[in-house]
Amino acid sequence: MKSLKERILSEGKYLGNGILKVDGFLNHQLYPDLTMQMGREFCKRLSQHGVSGVTKIVTAETSGIAPALAAAVAFDAPLVFARKKRPITMPDGYFSSEAPSHTKGGITTLMISPEYLRADDQVVIIDDFLATGLTTKALIEAIQKSGARVLGIGAVIEKGFEGGRTVLESFGVPIVSLAVIERLDESGIYLRD
Amino acid sequence: MKSLKERILSEGKYLGNGILKVDGFLNHQLYPDLTMQMGREFCKRLSQHGVSGVTKIVTAETSGIAPALAAAVAFDAPLVFARKKRPITMPDGYFSSEAPSHTKGGITTLMISPEYLRADDQVVIIDDFLATGLTTKALIEAIQKSGARVLGIGAVIEKGFEGGRTVLESFGVPIVSLAVIERLDESGIYLRD
Repeated sequence: MKSLKERILSEGKYLGNGILKVDGFLNHQLYPDLTMQMGREFCKRLSQHGVSGVTKIVTAETSGIAPALAAAVAFDAPLVFARKKRPITMPDGYFSSEAPSHTKGGITTLMISPEYLRADDQVVIIDDFLATGLTTKALIEAIQKSGARVLGIGAVIEKGFEGGRTVLESFGVPIVSLAVIERLDESGIYLRD
Repeated sequence: MKSLKERILSEGKYLGNGILKVDGFLNHQLYPDLTMQMGREFCKRLSQHGVSGVTKIVTAETSGIAPALAAAVAFDAPLVFARKKRPITMPDGYFSSEAPSHTKGGITTLMISPEYLRADDQVVIIDDFLATGLTTKALIEAIQKSGARVLGIGAVIEKGFEGGRTVLESFGVPIVSLAVIERLDESGIYLRD
């Protein structure tokens, strides 16, 4: 996605330790046009991979919500965002799975209420980053506990060097990234064409 | 907003202790049409109150992000969501303010990077709930530290009996709620006409 790649190259900053800062258009500030375009692009490209009959978009709070809402608009399907803390409004019997936390080094539990995922749901997962793939893997596992089927996966930015795609390929569904970073170091940010 | 009021009456649940559960369309699952309509309604009604020249929409993570993105689309202005934990990507000198936490009884610090709020910004604040008003008040205080001006406030659901409007009226800007709950008890949910 050209407009996204341009933003990554112009505003992305490498902070060392494999950390790419894209707060200016993904993790702290969002441009409405760019964000809504991400949703249309996920829909177009996953459809080209044969994904159809989507009944739910699922993401994890927090930074997944905006691109996932854009995808929900494009697919015309409700969005469910997995919670990382159990709200007092979430009933027992929720679907959950654990993933290592990016930021804190600990473990994050992703929770989805059984009220909003059913065995006949067909799900597309959207997230901001595909890096190690372990957050997405946890989302897939939580979703599968409901009996719902995952049809496809979309990530705004894939860090191609962290192996996440290999982790997720075992699930046998299309994986679409809107921009893939091949290499990231002091000399710059290198995107796949 | 009629479609929102219908959802509140059909899907909202009173859980006791003043807690209204609207996870089905605001805090856990989101309908794309309803959410995007919220954004248009905020824009229309704040404009009717004389709000113009908006350069930023500001909200607090997590549940504010979706309606605020919808408002950002309608106002055609970037969205900045205040963080509750400082990410490693946030530089020193951030604008912050403290609010009592809804869910945990403690204190939440709302943080906005100085990179995404400037003294000449004109801001509309959007949040999911207006209850005690203290989260919105903290957002206003954080924003004012940047020198930016707050032009208006929008909440998806106002709990009219928790006094938040009175707290915020001292800032002298229009406050728009898409649905106002007058009363909430075992007998039902009572909306203002």
